[in-house]
Amino acid sequence: MSANDIETYLEQTKSDRMNSYLEFLRIPSISMLSENESDCREAASWLAIELKRIGVENVEISETGGLPMVYGDWLHAPDAPTVLVYGHYDVQPVEPLDEWEIPPFEPVVRGNGLYGRGASDDKGQIHIHLKAVESILATRGHLPINLRFIFEGEEEAGSANLESWLEKNKERLSADVAVISDTGFFDGNIPAITIGLRGIVYIQVDVTGSTSDLHSGSFGGTVQNPANALCEIISKLKDDTGRILVPGFYDAVVPLSDRDREALAALPFDEAEYLASIGVTDTFGEAGYTTLERRGARPTLDVNGLWGGFQGEGSKTIIPASAHAKISCRLVAGQDPNDIFSKLTSFIREISPRGVKTNIEFLGAGRPSLTPMDHPAVKAAAAALSVTFGREPVYVREGGSIPVCENLESILGLPVVLLGFTPPNDNAHAPNEWMDLNNYESAIRTVVTYWDALVSLRG
Amino acid sequence: MSANDIETYLEQTKSDRMNSYLEFLRIPSISMLSENESDCREAASWLAIELKRIGVENVEISETGGLPMVYGDWLHAPDAPTVLVYGHYDVQPVEPLDEWEIPPFEPVVRGNGLYGRGASDDKGQIHIHLKAVESILATRGHLPINLRFIFEGEEEAGSANLESWLEKNKERLSADVAVISDTGFFDGNIPAITIGLRGIVYIQVDVTGSTSDLHSGSFGGTVQNPANALCEIISKLKDDTGRILVPGFYDAVVPLSDRDREALAALPFDEAEYLASIGVTDTFGEAGYTTLERRGARPTLDVNGLWGGFQGEGSKTIIPASAHAKISCRLVAGQDPNDIFSKLTSFIREISPRGVKTNIEFLGAGRPSLTPMDHPAVKAAAAALSVTFGREPVYVREGGSIPVCENLESILGLPVVLLGFTPPNDNAHAPNEWMDLNNYESAIRTVVTYWDALVSLRG
Repeated sequence: MSANDIETYLEQTKSDRMNSYLEFLRIPSISMLSENESDCREAASWLAIELKRIGVENVEISETGGLPMVYGDWLHAPDAPTVLVYGHYDVQPVEPLDEWEIPPFEPVVRGNGLYGRGASDDKGQIHIHLKAVESILATRGHLPINLRFIFEGEEEAGSANLESWLEKNKERLSADVAVISDTGFFDGNIPAITIGLRGIVYIQVDVTGSTSDLHSGSFGGTVQNPANALCEIISKLKDDTGRILVPGFYDAVVPLSDRDREALAALPFDEAEYLASIGVTDTFGEAGYTTLERRGARPTLDVNGLWGGFQGEGSKTIIPASAHAKISCRLVAGQDPNDIFSKLTSFIREISPRGVKTNIEFLGAGRPSLTPMDHPAVKAAAAALSVTFGREPVYVREGGSIPVCENLESILGLPVVLLGFTPPNDNAHAPNEWMDLNNYESAIRTVVTYWDALVSLRG
Repeated sequence: MSANDIETYLEQTKSDRMNSYLEFLRIPSISMLSENESDCREAASWLAIELKRIGVENVEISETGGLPMVYGDWLHAPDAPTVLVYGHYDVQPVEPLDEWEIPPFEPVVRGNGLYGRGASDDKGQIHIHLKAVESILATRGHLPINLRFIFEGEEEAGSANLESWLEKNKERLSADVAVISDTGFFDGNIPAITIGLRGIVYIQVDVTGSTSDLHSGSFGGTVQNPANALCEIISKLKDDTGRILVPGFYDAVVPLSDRDREALAALPFDEAEYLASIGVTDTFGEAGYTTLERRGARPTLDVNGLWGGFQGEGSKTIIPASAHAKISCRLVAGQDPNDIFSKLTSFIREISPRGVKTNIEFLGAGRPSLTPMDHPAVKAAAAALSVTFGREPVYVREGGSIPVCENLESILGLPVVLLGFTPPNDNAHAPNEWMDLNNYESAIRTVVTYWDALVSLRG
């Protein structure tokens, strides 16, 4: 029952482990492509068989209406907490194929890297969890905590059936905490725990004038131009320092505490390199905040797309009949997407110039999430990372959203720990995706240590 | 030599005249389509033969590098002025074909209308001039003035070779006044003389941020968004009453005189109908001016096209790498396109937000033109219209541009009289183009009367 037994087991089974990892990656489970549906189902079967083999119980391939969820549990630690582990077995498409150095579904080990589609996102991280549980059950015969696994097959295709499946299964998914391993380490491959994710509200604004494009000579100067009007609306949404002017927009924002600011300031962040990597010369944003604060802890308003009128070569002298914009706001802890949608809509209506019709369409929303740094499950994860990686993790607020995180919080009522292990340059969603095998091996030890550390969570 | 002889001649030759008109329209001289090049050359030949037949001299099909100009003159009135008459023998394409009630190049007479591509724009108006000269020479043996005809073959394709041809031939094109018959009557088919045309400056503005689109979660709030920046630039070009904010933009504008305002106010203009025809509920424009003043006598700034980022269905969470706009200004008498281009460019550079690169591309320009209402050649045209149509013409300032007008002014140094006869609903550039045959017949009498009236011009 000692850690040494597990270490010995892991050393002895290393080559089997690599073979199993490679085998899982060879299944081209691209959920976006209907021609790969049977491959996705094969990946689900592979997982179900593997879960049973290592001793997980009640294994089930659970239909969702789309691609199935794979469920399994081990619930024989009555006084210990229950952890729900989420991962996804589907992968991104592989285009552009000619930029891959290997065929994406013929994974290979090169040095300390394992290359192939899914190596990091997210099959590699599922595999870490399987191997952690396998090594504990093989050496000790039982786990220190109760575990439920749910592995999704549609994460890369929009998770269309996740919410309804969670709703339908929420009774049997009871747990104390959820752990999602679908994030990664910080710049420089520093162990990280993601504590904050931004939410989102996404709208389309359509400004319409005449029934068809007008000749700009015959009508210019006499009627409102929808493209000019759209630009006027958009320009009034923010001031020229980047502060959003929608009334009440910031009302519910949870302000950054001194501790939050210290944690973000402690991150090893090279701003010059950040800008150089995207070909931009200057940062730009709300006064009084650092770049990492702006990215993780402050809401935004960005035009995602813009169109109207003539876009071809040369000149065409028209006043467009209409002009359109996709606009989204990233939201932070405290902000409610419905409230922001309503405030944004009212304000756009208010500032819309006369002489045109302005229509606003709702295109989607997601809640922000923030797990306190001092939550016991976060502290236990941090301790496990410190032991296995030899340094304290950093606490990250990501600018993006992970919808499943919000679903697990709101539908199942669980605090979520985002504990991921991929290197920051893992090329997820790109050619030559890879996993750092040092991360992978240490991650298995981290999960083992984490489950041991969580025993006291309920107390 | 009396008008009665001409009237008798015109009555006797009416059916020949219609046959000749129909014959000219049957030639599908679409200059935009290379497969119609031989048709365009056939139309040029048809004109050359016809000019010779009616007694015009020095007839020449003059190569331009593209489609030829047709030249001819009659210069035997040594003490009388010389008039240069411009028209174009090429026509617009005919798409959408299924909206035509007849095959576009099989013209027919229905009631008092002649239907077919080119019936009004501009073959019908060339034909008016041919028939006026034919009837004078046939009845009197000589013209009261000297005439030069130039008929272009590339007007509907951008007049790429017009300027260089005019430059090369400017010695032999000496005249006292130019008459262009390529405009029409005012609403309600009221005889009109166009005295003002707006000029134009056309630019493209390209705002660039990152080297490729960015994830709006990972980067939103930290860098300038080129689409937001473009909207900010555009919104600062005009205030919300439509007044242009480019410094010095209005400096050279010739203000409207009381007489100009009276002439515009005298036009029978139904604003409600104007708006209803384009599906717009309100006018919009510079305070202190009527709609017709805004259209004809005030400069504009309009976005003609706008694009950047995601334009598809649904949502995509990116910050676009770049955003683009086509922007043009209509200019009025007094404004110099080069000066306005320079002022506009400087101002856009000045207001361009930091964190993005803004590039401005010149896409074209044309000078405004304005012929004084009291110019003797305008007054003579007005008198001729009054006699033949039984009412005083109205004086119109068009919002658009006719590039040839500016070329005749600037290259040949001629005052230009825009004397056109088509009904306002002639469907030029559209299916079912037609000419009102009452206008056509009276127009021939108008031109005859006009040439007689011009005899005293030089004095």
